[in-house]
Amino acid sequence: MNSDSQPREELTAQEAKFSEAYAAHQAAGLNLDLTRGKPSIAQLDLASGLDGILDRNFELPDGTDVRGYGGLEGIPEARALGAELLRVRPQEVLAGGNSSLTFMYLYLMHAVFYGVTGDRRPWSETSGGPVFLCPVPGYDRHFAICEDLGIEMLNVPMTGNGPDMDVVEGIIEDDPRIKGMWCVPRYSNPSGESYDDTTVERIATMLDRTAPDFRLMWDDAYAVHAIAGAPAPLKDLMQLCRGKGGEHKVIQFASTSKITFAGGGIAFLAASEENLASFKRRLSVLTIGPDKVNQLRHVKFLNNIDGIKAHMRGHAKILRPKFECVESRLRENLGNRGMGTWTTPEGGYFVSFYTLPGLAKEVVRLAGDAGVKLTPAGAAFPYGEDPEDSHIRLAPSYPELEDVDKAMQVFVTCVALASVRQRLEAPT
Amino acid sequence: MNSDSQPREELTAQEAKFSEAYAAHQAAGLNLDLTRGKPSIAQLDLASGLDGILDRNFELPDGTDVRGYGGLEGIPEARALGAELLRVRPQEVLAGGNSSLTFMYLYLMHAVFYGVTGDRRPWSETSGGPVFLCPVPGYDRHFAICEDLGIEMLNVPMTGNGPDMDVVEGIIEDDPRIKGMWCVPRYSNPSGESYDDTTVERIATMLDRTAPDFRLMWDDAYAVHAIAGAPAPLKDLMQLCRGKGGEHKVIQFASTSKITFAGGGIAFLAASEENLASFKRRLSVLTIGPDKVNQLRHVKFLNNIDGIKAHMRGHAKILRPKFECVESRLRENLGNRGMGTWTTPEGGYFVSFYTLPGLAKEVVRLAGDAGVKLTPAGAAFPYGEDPEDSHIRLAPSYPELEDVDKAMQVFVTCVALASVRQRLEAPT
Repeated sequence: MNSDSQPREELTAQEAKFSEAYAAHQAAGLNLDLTRGKPSIAQLDLASGLDGILDRNFELPDGTDVRGYGGLEGIPEARALGAELLRVRPQEVLAGGNSSLTFMYLYLMHAVFYGVTGDRRPWSETSGGPVFLCPVPGYDRHFAICEDLGIEMLNVPMTGNGPDMDVVEGIIEDDPRIKGMWCVPRYSNPSGESYDDTTVERIATMLDRTAPDFRLMWDDAYAVHAIAGAPAPLKDLMQLCRGKGGEHKVIQFASTSKITFAGGGIAFLAASEENLASFKRRLSVLTIGPDKVNQLRHVKFLNNIDGIKAHMRGHAKILRPKFECVESRLRENLGNRGMGTWTTPEGGYFVSFYTLPGLAKEVVRLAGDAGVKLTPAGAAFPYGEDPEDSHIRLAPSYPELEDVDKAMQVFVTCVALASVRQRLEAPT
Repeated sequence: MNSDSQPREELTAQEAKFSEAYAAHQAAGLNLDLTRGKPSIAQLDLASGLDGILDRNFELPDGTDVRGYGGLEGIPEARALGAELLRVRPQEVLAGGNSSLTFMYLYLMHAVFYGVTGDRRPWSETSGGPVFLCPVPGYDRHFAICEDLGIEMLNVPMTGNGPDMDVVEGIIEDDPRIKGMWCVPRYSNPSGESYDDTTVERIATMLDRTAPDFRLMWDDAYAVHAIAGAPAPLKDLMQLCRGKGGEHKVIQFASTSKITFAGGGIAFLAASEENLASFKRRLSVLTIGPDKVNQLRHVKFLNNIDGIKAHMRGHAKILRPKFECVESRLRENLGNRGMGTWTTPEGGYFVSFYTLPGLAKEVVRLAGDAGVKLTPAGAAFPYGEDPEDSHIRLAPSYPELEDVDKAMQVFVTCVALASVRQRLEAPT
């Protein structure tokens, strides 16, 4: 747009052109959805072999019949798989049902209402209320858990290599109410960035300075979810913390939701054995054990970390063209125009787009009115409030490639139209 | 024993005889377990057809792919199955993962910390603390949930036809702290009794007199679990309550844990739509949805309530000889001897045995020392405290029939030995 220097007539002409393009999109009667990070049918098909894989053999090597009751921690073979995925010891892993989100909620609920190992005072009794650091943009369901449990959230900016540790260290120093922090260290939801070595090292060092009941919620949801190139390396935080007390402050999560079946996978929680002992006391009240039959299906289907990695190459192959399509539509139409910036992730499920300040809601509205549903603006921020009204999360995994392409054509038109209109409305 | 009138020499001779029998059992080096109500391998085998039944067809009639995310309430077909089982409308049912226990915990957690429809004050803020009525003997896992959530428990005796409603009505009148009551209306755990029409009608009437946030936890865990004869009829509580406000105070539970796979079944929660709306807001924070793949397996395998009933006849056939064995060993050895009484259930998973007062712990200890593990005495009471130290729960479902028989021979010997010793030690 070349902003300030652009003559008004030129802006008016652009507005007319984009309006016309937008009207054409509206007339097309589209019904497309880029809202959530869901695997497509083709991706789900990669794991169809899960169903029936047991061939009615339900016995583990140790004699356990997986159809029966019991086994609060999950079957040993599933715990071992989770341990490989999260790079910890099998005895530090709980293998659960279909959702790491449930593990996260239950872990924080136990902390809020009952306290954690190291400090048995419930977080809810924190003077002034408990607080969590939330790197933004982040995962809306993380923030919903905090909101539900009465944990106040403080935004921390992301740098492209993880959270801004200058900010984190400063806040931690200042505020004893801070009980924890959310992290998605690889292909972060929704920016797609991965934490670099320095960031992870600074997190490990920081943990030494936190209170004994501080908990880092390390959601490695996209550990093996490379789309392009080699998987992102990630410094092993737990390894850095071991023997220094920090190992009791790291709670790690992963699941197979975006590896096998989104709604029928298995989840993992990894933490120090002391942490697990405390959490298991609570867990044993609400369940006799997870669905071990489905855990055994997963073990038979995935085998080990190498099996997972091989399987994930199939996902990458399906996802790559969709992400390339998003990138190329953005670059072609919005590159170097001063109408916004975006991330080009090498893994995960999302692209983050940043409009000019104050336009995210308007772009989402325009797209919606033209039949392209986007995640509500602000959703990636605590309380749904993006202070800049600038961030939009694009999730191209679920629709067919041609629909991603159509949706992106609408999207870039909406961004251009909103940007030009903003310029026109600005006081001269 | 003919108690008081029995000459001391005779008692001494009996003690010697039972001691000898006991020593012989000890010498046999048994390792048997009657502790938990677990389906046997033969029962699990009845449902082996679940695995692979989908034949890789994952689509519902409405187009939903069950492998994907979503569907907080469960698939419509599973909700319909739960509705038939619990005799409510499908829209009043949530179909969940593998455990009704988890539903119970989460429902009560939501009540304790967030309040329920009709009164948004959290139960935890009840002056003096919330209280639950607990018919005893009852299910230890129900009581563990109350204990964990800080809900005080009050014992209510069972009559053989359900809880003693004179006692219940009296307490309800007196104590505004009472927030709810546990009920296992059919083949109750562990007495095996079913609630008669009068009891259910009095419960329905009583509900009208409770506060808007009172909740009856109606755990119909053994709805279709007849062992002998026709299934126990049960007056439809929800139907009795409809239109009177009581329908918002009944929360019903069931699962397929003792129908298909104990650890890999599906669970149901049924309640008024208003209740469900409130509970779903909480549920949506901790899960995107249950494992719909496994729900579809269950729907395909069980079809409908008639399918369930037909399937349950297979269970009854396996369970009946074990319960007959327990009954006949008890009758042969302890019938009319004044050494205890017991229930003869026509369904469910347990027999309740009542020793002479003060002997339950001793009998459990003796049996354990002779290689027969029993549920700890007191387990069927809140806080693990049987005021009479008299109740023992026998769970004959899991072991093979010949092991049930061996275990019962040990058990009756332990009861006889403990009873005679008590008599000998009594002041003359």
